Amino acid sequence: MFLTRTEYDRGVNTFSPEGRLFQVEYAIEAIKLGSTAIGLKTKEGVVLAVEKRITSPLLEPSSVEKVMEIDEHIGCAMSGLIADARTLVEHARVETQNHRFSYGEPMTVESTTQALCDLALRFGEGDEESMVIHSRPFGVSLLIAGHDENGPSLYYTDPSGTFWQCNAKAIGSGSEGADSSLQEQYNKELTLQEAETIALSILKQVMEEKVTPNNVDIAKVAPTYHLYTPSEVEAVISRL
Amino acid sequence: MFLTRTEYDRGVNTFSPEGRLFQVEYAIEAIKLGSTAIGLKTKEGVVLAVEKRITSPLLEPSSVEKVMEIDEHIGCAMSGLIADARTLVEHARVETQNHRFSYGEPMTVESTTQALCDLALRFGEGDEESMVIHSRPFGVSLLIAGHDENGPSLYYTDPSGTFWQCNAKAIGSGSEGADSSLQEQYNKELTLQEAETIALSILKQVMEEKVTPNNVDIAKVAPTYHLYTPSEVEAVISRL
Amino acid sequence: MFLTRTEYDRGVNTFSPEGRLFQVEYAIEAIKLGSTAIGLKTKEGVVLAVEKRITSPLLEPSSVEKVMEIDEHIGCAMSGLIADARTLVEHARVETQNHRFSYGEPMTVESTTQALCDLALRFGEGDEESMVIHSRPFGVSLLIAGHDENGPSLYYTDPSGTFWQCNAKAIGSGSEGADSSLQEQYNKELTLQEAETIALSILKQVMEEKVTPNNVDIAKVAPTYHLYTPSEVEAVISRL
Amino acid sequence: MFLTRTEYDRGVNTFSPEGRLFQVEYAIEAIKLGSTAIGLKTKEGVVLAVEKRITSPLLEPSSVEKVMEIDEHIGCAMSGLIADARTLVEHARVETQNHRFSYGEPMTVESTTQALCDLALRFGEGDEESMVIHSRPFGVSLLIAGHDENGPSLYYTDPSGTFWQCNAKAIGSGSEGADSSLQEQYNKELTLQEAETIALSILKQVMEEKVTPNNVDIAKVAPTYHLYTPSEVEAVISRL
Amino acid sequence: MFLTRTEYDRGVNTFSPEGRLFQVEYAIEAIKLGSTAIGLKTKEGVVLAVEKRITSPLLEPSSVEKVMEIDEHIGCAMSGLIADARTLVEHARVETQNHRFSYGEPMTVESTTQALCDLALRFGEGDEESMVIHSRPFGVSLLIAGHDENGPSLYYTDPSGTFWQCNAKAIGSGSEGADSSLQEQYNKELTLQEAETIALSILKQVMEEKVTPNNVDIAKVAPTYHLYTPSEVEAVISRL
Amino acid sequence: MFLTRTEYDRGVNTFSPEGRLFQVEYAIEAIKLGSTAIGLKTKEGVVLAVEKRITSPLLEPSSVEKVMEIDEHIGCAMSGLIADARTLVEHARVETQNHRFSYGEPMTVESTTQALCDLALRFGEGDEESMVIHSRPFGVSLLIAGHDENGPSLYYTDPSGTFWQCNAKAIGSGSEGADSSLQEQYNKELTLQEAETIALSILKQVMEEKVTPNNVDIAKVAPTYHLYTPSEVEAVISRL
Amino acid sequence: MFLTRTEYDRGVNTFSPEGRLFQVEYAIEAIKLGSTAIGLKTKEGVVLAVEKRITSPLLEPSSVEKVMEIDEHIGCAMSGLIADARTLVEHARVETQNHRFSYGEPMTVESTTQALCDLALRFGEGDEESMVIHSRPFGVSLLIAGHDENGPSLYYTDPSGTFWQCNAKAIGSGSEGADSSLQEQYNKELTLQEAETIALSILKQVMEEKVTPNNVDIAKVAPTYHLYTPSEVEAVISRL
Repeated sequence: MFLTRTEYDRGVNTFSPEGRLFQVEYAIEAIKLGSTAIGLKTKEGVVLAVEKRITSPLLEPSSVEKVMEIDEHIGCAMSGLIADARTLVEHARVETQNHRFSYGEPMTVESTTQALCDLALRFGEGDEESMVIHSRPFGVSLLIAGHDENGPSLYYTDPSGTFWQCNAKAIGSGSEGADSSLQEQYNKELTLQEAETIALSILKQVMEEKVTPNNVDIAKVAPTYHLYTPSEVEAVISRL
Repeated sequence: MFLTRTEYDRGVNTFSPEGRLFQVEYAIEAIKLGSTAIGLKTKEGVVLAVEKRITSPLLEPSSVEKVMEIDEHIGCAMSGLIADARTLVEHARVETQNHRFSYGEPMTVESTTQALCDLALRFGEGDEESMVIHSRPFGVSLLIAGHDENGPSLYYTDPSGTFWQCNAKAIGSGSEGADSSLQEQYNKELTLQEAETIALSILKQVMEEKVTPNNVDIAKVAPTYHLYTPSEVEAVISRL
Repeated sequence: MFLTRTEYDRGVNTFSPEGRLFQVEYAIEAIKLGSTAIGLKTKEGVVLAVEKRITSPLLEPSSVEKVMEIDEHIGCAMSGLIADARTLVEHARVETQNHRFSYGEPMTVESTTQALCDLALRFGEGDEESMVIHSRPFGVSLLIAGHDENGPSLYYTDPSGTFWQCNAKAIGSGSEGADSSLQEQYNKELTLQEAETIALSILKQVMEEKVTPNNVDIAKVAPTYHLYTPSEVEAVISRL
Repeated sequence: MFLTRTEYDRGVNTFSPEGRLFQVEYAIEAIKLGSTAIGLKTKEGVVLAVEKRITSPLLEPSSVEKVMEIDEHIGCAMSGLIADARTLVEHARVETQNHRFSYGEPMTVESTTQALCDLALRFGEGDEESMVIHSRPFGVSLLIAGHDENGPSLYYTDPSGTFWQCNAKAIGSGSEGADSSLQEQYNKELTLQEAETIALSILKQVMEEKVTPNNVDIAKVAPTYHLYTPSEVEAVISRL
Repeated sequence: MFLTRTEYDRGVNTFSPEGRLFQVEYAIEAIKLGSTAIGLKTKEGVVLAVEKRITSPLLEPSSVEKVMEIDEHIGCAMSGLIADARTLVEHARVETQNHRFSYGEPMTVESTTQALCDLALRFGEGDEESMVIHSRPFGVSLLIAGHDENGPSLYYTDPSGTFWQCNAKAIGSGSEGADSSLQEQYNKELTLQEAETIALSILKQVMEEKVTPNNVDIAKVAPTYHLYTPSEVEAVISRL
Repeated sequence: MFLTRTEYDRGVNTFSPEGRLFQVEYAIEAIKLGSTAIGLKTKEGVVLAVEKRITSPLLEPSSVEKVMEIDEHIGCAMSGLIADARTLVEHARVETQNHRFSYGEPMTVESTTQALCDLALRFGEGDEESMVIHSRPFGVSLLIAGHDENGPSLYYTDPSGTFWQCNAKAIGSGSEGADSSLQEQYNKELTLQEAETIALSILKQVMEEKVTPNNVDIAKVAPTYHLYTPSEVEAVISRL
Repeated sequence: MFLTRTEYDRGVNTFSPEGRLFQVEYAIEAIKLGSTAIGLKTKEGVVLAVEKRITSPLLEPSSVEKVMEIDEHIGCAMSGLIADARTLVEHARVETQNHRFSYGEPMTVESTTQALCDLALRFGEGDEESMVIHSRPFGVSLLIAGHDENGPSLYYTDPSGTFWQCNAKAIGSGSEGADSSLQEQYNKELTLQEAETIALSILKQVMEEKVTPNNVDIAKVAPTYHLYTPSEVEAVISRL
């Protein structure tokens, strides 16, 4: 009698007989519970749009941050455990500032993404710099938007510490439907304004409530990070 | 045969197949056993009101502290394991003092809240500063009231290390009913005095005993922290 | 099929689904096996009275210490695991001496109590000063009597690291009955002598043997710590 | 009643009664889930060809890196967990740069392979340099192509930290069929161009989709590392 | 269905639901398997007598040491795991020598006993001085006889790290019967010679073999430690 | 009901009730899965012969190293986990080089063997030099051939860290039959050439394939280490 | 339902309810599987005789060392896990050399024995000098023969870290019968030559094969350590 897969899935770093790491796969499930976020790359820059899930009218919408600046040329949208995301973003901010200080130039978007994934990969290991031990995978996916000497770029990371460069990508609970819509509507010649409209219209489809400046955030990196004000969001909504 | 969820819920940092962290969710349950606390933000400042649960007439009411000063411009109300809260508050006091010493200005309310959540998030990990290992989530929620260059603000934190900015919020065993009442009665134009009255009248509804200066505490940050004296509490009670 | 509570109660720092920490609750049970101790605060000072449980006539009664001096203005009575209590008292003695040395003045009673509870709270964690790891809660409750610039005060601590200020309190196996009697007999205008009499008469009710200078200890902090000599104890007994 | 093998297979470093280490064997299974990669050694140099598995048309093909440069005279193709591979490659890059810096000459291909395997072997152990603890085997196989004073060489590594020198080798999900084809078609007198054609024609057999410059990568070390441009890949495809 | 007590008794430092620490209680059982030792305090000094259990005629009786000198004014008798006792005695010897060196005077008997118990208490914890971790309670009880500025004294310690001062005490497998006999025969006016006779006559009752200078040891602290020579033991035997 | 042996065999360093260490015994099993190796000591020097198991015609036979040089006067043949053997050999190379550097003379064969076994013995312990923790026994046996001031010598080590000096010895899957043949054919007056022939003829019996210079390696230490070239191996084969 | 003893016997340092430490008792079992060793003390010096168990005629008898020199005035015979014994002997050699270096005189036999037992006792603990952690008891017993200012002496140690001084003692698989014979034949007036004869004649009884200089070793400390040459052993055999 062999053990079923359930015996392997609690060991944080244990391979199952088929060579799978279940704790990483379950962390990926955590993201499927998260709010939806969408990113689109255009020649002019990258657009990020996120659903904010304001659970109570008494909550301050601006304090629900699901799009954050990493450096002036890099921002990211997140889905999953927000507290985990904050740890990753804080780490990336230190890395990019250190890079500027050491080399006198901004860190490339790919290097920043790699630094984030290196940290994500180290769960269950000691961290040589700070002796911190991450005892489980980070339960968060990121869409990293940036602009460097290679122009605009969009990266997608998952809890396994793997990353991919994309033209467009959706994460979170509505990602399946949103990804299909993106494949239909995306082309490389989109203007930034068209990308804003597509991002928000797709987000609208997967959200249960009416889209308002209170329950979505939009940001762009073109070529610097900018979080849209409520009136700028309102303007995009009115174009739908 | 798959394992049921109960097999996952004892691992402090183990994801269940659906991507959930049960120990954090159970710590959140600990708060549902706690006394009720309420916070309201007004333009003039923030009001905090807490139920004290004096279990014996021989207990000194003033020694049951569920509202505490963090810095002169920040205070907090708590619900859950009081000893855990004290550790968090002590940490925040050190952080705010260090900030004043290093930068010659008060720490913002958001930074203070973030510092608290960073500590809360690190359970099951080593702490790079002091090598302390927190082996379980902190079983406490906080309502953090403050006043800084951005005016008054109210934050709410939970055991997962996540925080939100709110206009009004209730925590503890009576939070469900209290939150509904807050949504009905809150508006942004409330005066501080009206906020005091609303906070205490809602607390009165969820408490089993008669409200007296002995079994509730009220504090405000407007713009500095002030814990109401028994006669000041009495004055609010008389307005109900 | 869900696990019953028994699956959670062995993890030192594991929350049960209802948010409870069973090891702390079981440590509190350890105190219910302990000898009874009683404290009363009066305007003149604080009285502590403890049952000594001399199990053999060959034992030296004076070596069974359940009331101990912490500093000249602070003493404490204990119930539960005596060896654990000694570790806590030793820690408090170092803290109060350090305070005198650093600041040239006695430590307040509340600060001393807080220092004791900070240590009690750290079980299952590393201790930043000495790298000692306390692998279980301390199985002891303390009644801390002191006198400082705020006058006399009485604190009660339990294994969870929580403390309360009280006017009167009983701990140990007879605490339930003793607490009821204290509520009936206590008032704030008691003289120190009346408090001695009440403490001993209540202790007499919960003890199985006749009260003698051999099997009880009485101490007061008024304003300095004094452990009663056998003849002073005899004098109190004779007043019953 | 003896335990079946399933009781041994979760201990990362536990021998079964037959002397087997199951976690290493399961990590080897992880590679059978990976994309196929093929290497061929010729007198002129070594060719590497990999399947890229572009799961979405929105993914940037060039960001799916499964062939990477280690030093200017060494490259590698990988199959299995890509994030693990990146850790190994990063380690090898540091080793080869250190070697150049210390000895003023390139590291040999065998020494580089050995350095990679030393790291792979150390899972479940502390790493004397950086105190990092690898808590499971690396779930990745590498084909390491290089050119040094001994001419071209091709090495194959597996998760057990063992390596072999080969004339030709396939790894990943299609490796069984590909290895058979390689044995039939390989001879030591192949030109580099013939090797390119063989590698791609075999890859074509094991891939489910049509081969395009988007879903395969080709690289050679002859004598320096070169990753083929899309048009160079197109040229090889057109020769099939 | 609740777990029975057996589920708690293997955790070294786990409280059972009734608040008990079973590993400490089982260590106390280890002493009930040990050889019997008896101590009596008189005004002239303290007498220790132990059974030696010479299991083979080829064993050198003098090498079975169950009474040992700690300092010239302190000795101890032991029952339980002899190797554990040696660790404790060695620790006490270092402490008393350090005290003499630091303060120019002998350590008091109580301080020495407390130092021993502090070590005994620390099992399952790190030791701040030497980083040694004692992973289980010490399986030994001690009778500590000494003479200092307060005159002669006798202390009894158990594996929980608790100690008591006694006039007379027996430990080990025959302790129950021996304690009863001691209560009948002991009075404070005994001479040292009478105490020797009582100790040996009681030991004789609980031993299975005839008492000879080979299978018992006698020592006194009056006021310095002295281990009786075989002829001195013979003299006491002849008085029975 | 007592536990069967299977309960003991997973604890790396746990004695079974009969006093056995199963993990060591299972590591010894790992060697029975390994390729066969044979060593013979003659007055002229020591011969080592090993089976290479070339699993694919595309594998480079010379990269399958199962005989390795440790120092110029010491070599070894191995059977079991090759990666483990490499760690041991690397350790021995450092030790012998250090010895030459410190003492200006070669390390003796026995000291080298002892150094290897000291490392093998330390699994489950910390290594005082490099803090590396070996979490399981090394799954490899070695035949160590050397020549020092005492003339030629042959040592055999197993995973328990034990070693023996031998005149002739076989290890690996064919060791049982090979050892019998060695006992019949060995005598102390053999020439080196006769030893070569015996070693290869016995290896031939236990191998499934035809013996060729590709699938066996021969080495001698006479008095320095020499690995036979394919043509030297061919010459020995032709003498069979 | 209580757990049976089998639940306690795998915890290295766990007391069973009867106060027993099973892992130590199982290590003692390991010695009952070992070869027999015998020691006898005479006025002229101490004789050690051991069975060597040469399992193959190809083994070099002189490399099976079961009697070893510790210092020039101390030797020891061993039974059980030989690799464990080597660690202990190596430790003792360092201790005795350090003692000579520090104090300019040889270490006494008792101090050396105590140093060995201190190490043996520390399993499951950290070692303050070298941070080595011994994760199980040492599975070996030693007979330590020495000669110092107190004349000849013989000590016997077991895996619990306990030691006894003896006139004569046997250890290993034949110890039970050998101990009986020793009790019959031993007297304190034996000459060294008579002791040699007795030791070998008893060893002969418990060995399955004929006694030859190849399968026994004899050593004496009289007053310095001397391992008998084959011809010296032959001479003793011929006296039987």
